[in-house]
Amino acid sequence: MLELRLVQGSLLKKVMESIKDLVNDANFDCSSTGFSLQAMDSSHVALVSLLLRSEGFEHYRCDRNISMGMNLGNMSKMLKCAGNDDIITIKADDGSDTVTFMFESPTQDKIADFEMKLMDIDSEHLGIPEAEYHAIVRMPSAEFARICKDLSSIGDTVVISVTKEGVKFSTRGDIGTANVVCRQNTTVDKPEEATVIEMNEPVSLTFALRYMNSFTKASPLSSTVTISLSSELPVVVEYKIAEMGYIRFYLAPKIEDDDEENKS
Amino acid sequence: MLELRLVQGSLLKKVMESIKDLVNDANFDCSSTGFSLQAMDSSHVALVSLLLRSEGFEHYRCDRNISMGMNLGNMSKMLKCAGNDDIITIKADDGSDTVTFMFESPTQDKIADFEMKLMDIDSEHLGIPEAEYHAIVRMPSAEFARICKDLSSIGDTVVISVTKEGVKFSTRGDIGTANVVCRQNTTVDKPEEATVIEMNEPVSLTFALRYMNSFTKASPLSSTVTISLSSELPVVVEYKIAEMGYIRFYLAPKIEDDDEENKS
Amino acid sequence: MLELRLVQGSLLKKVMESIKDLVNDANFDCSSTGFSLQAMDSSHVALVSLLLRSEGFEHYRCDRNISMGMNLGNMSKMLKCAGNDDIITIKADDGSDTVTFMFESPTQDKIADFEMKLMDIDSEHLGIPEAEYHAIVRMPSAEFARICKDLSSIGDTVVISVTKEGVKFSTRGDIGTANVVCRQNTTVDKPEEATVIEMNEPVSLTFALRYMNSFTKASPLSSTVTISLSSELPVVVEYKIAEMGYIRFYLAPKIEDDDEENKS
Repeated sequence: MLELRLVQGSLLKKVMESIKDLVNDANFDCSSTGFSLQAMDSSHVALVSLLLRSEGFEHYRCDRNISMGMNLGNMSKMLKCAGNDDIITIKADDGSDTVTFMFESPTQDKIADFEMKLMDIDSEHLGIPEAEYHAIVRMPSAEFARICKDLSSIGDTVVISVTKEGVKFSTRGDIGTANVVCRQNTTVDKPEEATVIEMNEPVSLTFALRYMNSFTKASPLSSTVTISLSSELPVVVEYKIAEMGYIRFYLAPKIEDDDEENKS
Repeated sequence: MLELRLVQGSLLKKVMESIKDLVNDANFDCSSTGFSLQAMDSSHVALVSLLLRSEGFEHYRCDRNISMGMNLGNMSKMLKCAGNDDIITIKADDGSDTVTFMFESPTQDKIADFEMKLMDIDSEHLGIPEAEYHAIVRMPSAEFARICKDLSSIGDTVVISVTKEGVKFSTRGDIGTANVVCRQNTTVDKPEEATVIEMNEPVSLTFALRYMNSFTKASPLSSTVTISLSSELPVVVEYKIAEMGYIRFYLAPKIEDDDEENKS
Repeated sequence: MLELRLVQGSLLKKVMESIKDLVNDANFDCSSTGFSLQAMDSSHVALVSLLLRSEGFEHYRCDRNISMGMNLGNMSKMLKCAGNDDIITIKADDGSDTVTFMFESPTQDKIADFEMKLMDIDSEHLGIPEAEYHAIVRMPSAEFARICKDLSSIGDTVVISVTKEGVKFSTRGDIGTANVVCRQNTTVDKPEEATVIEMNEPVSLTFALRYMNSFTKASPLSSTVTISLSSELPVVVEYKIAEMGYIRFYLAPKIEDDDEENKS
């Protein structure tokens, strides 16, 4: 028996919107500690890792660990039917091949039940070790999203370079080149507007903008994003989910080839 | 000579938006008592009935009963050119084969005349007898529209079931099933937010969501919708037009076939 | 060396949005007095003339007159990456075949450089003599844009007729005819809402609505538009750019053929 009641149902809606275009089918893993997902994107390049800790739910009952295979497109269709103020409850009976999403309006005058068939999905849970990063950048999520979108109008890849002074995002394409520099800035009125750089050594890595743009769909979940960079590791783009957990995207750097021109 | 002056011209704009996709061509009937329309949708499944009573017009002159055949797409194109605060006057000379829509801005600084050719349209005026219904549901029009839209993402048809406690909207499709229950609720701050159920006997009927979604385009006309259901009669979905009349949509229930699966 | 710093960078963004669909490639001419452009539209029917005077820039350095050929679509892609509150600087080194657009956020925390290749464009600078017009209409730019858009849903051309009392915009198409009259009106609360007519003699001229609609994309630059009409000259549709200059569109009247019916 599984019953997870989330008062701030809009969080789950936002989570789905942020991953449904990246991942087609995935197993949601439910244990006593939380509701989580780990999945490769459909082209097996990027990895998504989601955690919603049990403490963040108003009511959390998970009698035994289960893994529920869902089509994220279908799940998203159902969650779109929840109002932004609705309470969402995820329910599954033991041994059942369905999951039920229940949406309660704040006044309790409208109750909706959406039942979806579960799928069998082969998946391998990758252990992701805690790692040391050369540089960690925390910045406003809207600004990071804007930069990735802007650079996509010029080129296909972004070079992210971190120094003590700031982080530089660069691209080049048929029509020209673009460089955007965000300076470290911690003296802002609101902490979520700060750009904070922790750096052990300078790093400069190249990534496909297509994936970066996909990751930024998680921006509604958090006002800040944390980008962890190391020359030997995939970048981690993390959005915290208030008091509940996080969604993290992993993407391997491209080996930059100077002869290769990006296409606009 | 016909001259109908409607100070709240936006009403006529909203009326057109609510029926133009359902009905291609129709006769508008004008008499001393009001301006009305009755028309089948282009696939002859649903019926629209509109009444704008003469008392609702600032000036209403209709010397003799006339029937004016109009293409609703073209009429809608013209009415879209009226500003939302404009006064709209409908004018036609006796024996003329055109109708003129005049739009006056509130300041009278801008006056527009749009003249449209009339059409000859064969139509049969159906007498719609007053009927007894098994159940009548009054609910917020925006909520009804939301439910029809939401269920359309899952299935093709909706089962509307009324009991004393509430009204249930259900669908099923390839990806799963959905049930939305709205409880009777008359203790709300604003009367237009109430869900009120008058029931003589329980009723459960199936309708094509495509049509229901089309009907809900009339939602801007009224904050509430009234759904009258009877197992022997077409459902009536009615939107009142403040102090002027109504727009009513009639749709026959589907004979539900349990073997038939809806497609998403 | 060229360096032009424009504090209100959004002006340049709006200028690009207003001409990029009309003109593909054009030379921007830079001299000590200002930054200007003169170009025919891609079908060689309409002419655009832009002037941004040097006094309107916070910093304006132009060591010698230069003409920079740019693809306006690419330039627009780059300027779209500037924030609406950003300061924009246009930079070019002597003899360089590139131009750089620098965007500074108001807080100076984010600095972007976009570098674009220049093009060689053959162009002939037409002298446009100051002329006497039969009638000059000044009216709210939003209203002119609305009228052109509205009439486009009925016909392909607009007849603009000016008398002392007002200006009439007319069209006809398959579905009917439309006339919109704006009365002279100088007693308004805000001067930008006035419709002012200076007339030496009545004039009635026909223009392609397609071009008029294109010109109205400059509406965000100014709350008023000035339309100068003369039977022997192209119409001038002018949008002033506050304290800096103007953008002017020139279009020859159509020789109206009464046999020709517009298509809707």
